[in-house]
Amino acid sequence: MIEAADIEAAAGRIAPHVRRTPVMRMAGGDLGLDIPLILKLELLQATGSFKPRGAFNRMLSLPVPAAGVATASGGNHGAAVAYAARALGHKAEVFCPVPTPAAKTDRIRAYGATLHQVGQAYDEAREASEARAAETGAMIVHAYDQPEVLAGQGTVGLELWQDAPEATHVLVATGGGGLIGGIAAWYAGRGAEVISVEPEGCPTLATALREGRPVPCPVGGLASDSLGARQVGALMFEVARHHVARAVLVPDAAILDAQKRLWQAMRAVAEPGGATALAALTTGAFVPPAGARVAVVVCGSNTDPAKVV
Amino acid sequence: MIEAADIEAAAGRIAPHVRRTPVMRMAGGDLGLDIPLILKLELLQATGSFKPRGAFNRMLSLPVPAAGVATASGGNHGAAVAYAARALGHKAEVFCPVPTPAAKTDRIRAYGATLHQVGQAYDEAREASEARAAETGAMIVHAYDQPEVLAGQGTVGLELWQDAPEATHVLVATGGGGLIGGIAAWYAGRGAEVISVEPEGCPTLATALREGRPVPCPVGGLASDSLGARQVGALMFEVARHHVARAVLVPDAAILDAQKRLWQAMRAVAEPGGATALAALTTGAFVPPAGARVAVVVCGSNTDPAKVV
Repeated sequence: MIEAADIEAAAGRIAPHVRRTPVMRMAGGDLGLDIPLILKLELLQATGSFKPRGAFNRMLSLPVPAAGVATASGGNHGAAVAYAARALGHKAEVFCPVPTPAAKTDRIRAYGATLHQVGQAYDEAREASEARAAETGAMIVHAYDQPEVLAGQGTVGLELWQDAPEATHVLVATGGGGLIGGIAAWYAGRGAEVISVEPEGCPTLATALREGRPVPCPVGGLASDSLGARQVGALMFEVARHHVARAVLVPDAAILDAQKRLWQAMRAVAEPGGATALAALTTGAFVPPAGARVAVVVCGSNTDPAKVV
Repeated sequence: MIEAADIEAAAGRIAPHVRRTPVMRMAGGDLGLDIPLILKLELLQATGSFKPRGAFNRMLSLPVPAAGVATASGGNHGAAVAYAARALGHKAEVFCPVPTPAAKTDRIRAYGATLHQVGQAYDEAREASEARAAETGAMIVHAYDQPEVLAGQGTVGLELWQDAPEATHVLVATGGGGLIGGIAAWYAGRGAEVISVEPEGCPTLATALREGRPVPCPVGGLASDSLGARQVGALMFEVARHHVARAVLVPDAAILDAQKRLWQAMRAVAEPGGATALAALTTGAFVPPAGARVAVVVCGSNTDPAKVV
């Protein structure tokens, strides 16, 4: 299981390459909430999501072969791998499902990676990426289920803990679980509860926690381009079973509503997966106890702003 | 002249009502620059610009009559006055020029103020607001030329100085000059140079510094809805003549380009006036000396995102 020391090492490794994204505290009123909030504005990260943290940490931890790197992604991880590969001078091939939004595929191409669009969901793209890597010898940078990737994403938790030590609850969206796995590993034993928020359409962690192991789930709904893994990773599950306090579900309508609230209140363009954690508060799926200081990780921005205005 | 103590007092007064906006450090490469940057993300402020700082400070410093407050504005200040008046339980009447963007007039109405659209530019709206206040007894909350307003805007400088003490140069857009006047008053004697950036279409401070006094200027161009005062305020000019190191001009095309760079690099939706300060770097209107640590105040976001994508 990854540990705090792995995350601290990752933070040092990736610091020259990623942004330390800011925390902002705000009254909840402008978001329609009656509690103050701590927002970790990870949507301001390079490439528009938290994903470069894990991608850089993987590529900086292991020797990258001349064939470069290969990956599969709903889009954000692919953009991050393309961005990191360009920065470090490696070739990159990225496999995305056909329905990936242009906001993401445009970034992947702009960063110079070779893009392949395969299948309808992440899992088919993953199979294609693995076949390709077996053929070329490229190193796989998995979207969530590698220790270096988890530790990299965990630096979001490290920064949040340093910048907002008062947080008692941390709300994080879950797809494959790399982000929440890393964050929960950081917060283990530090006193704040880490809570998973998932769309009803792809309840990977809620299902895994109930079943006692990662199991395949339906993949659908508004946020499936970023939270649409079929099941959570094995590595994150070992963290989550001990260190994720609970997993709650929110409907798509609440995710869209949360996107609009973030736009209205602070002109932030959050993609559906980026607004999912906030929706746990606006729906009441998570009701903070009295005196709680709730932090929300706003983790991605790659969407067409016309959809949130 | 306003002083640091006025700004510190303002910071205490307005703290329950405004957001302490974050600072983010980033490599310049994603913005097409070869220097690292410090960004003061004031576009995340309530109402989408820095203006609530001055509006709250004015309303909390003086007794507000039953007739409430009146103001004239290119839009952002009007939205801030409407927001602050609602929060504090006062009536508000806001006068804007007819061409004010819907992104701003919608906010003014949404916050419950009475909106009047008068004339083609800020100055005509200002005359109408003063006539109306004389009639009703409302207190004027000036968009820039009142000491409480300057001191409130100066809290942007205080926060930036606390959060990024390494900054050697601070780039700020100028219209009527409330923001840069407050910031320059804070930085007086603190070692960093404060530099004014203005659109070529409304060069109020560059002209005033050349002429030795505020003088009327043309009002035009892309950013005139936020930087379109006819001349700088008398109060800010007393600060600026001593504490603004220089005033540089940028063309509209560079402002639009800076908006697009902010969108591409960090998914920030900055209005033209909010991106103007950055344009001083991308155009070379300001060339930082070797070793400089440059801070850019990104001060507003009220625009249609379709214009920046």
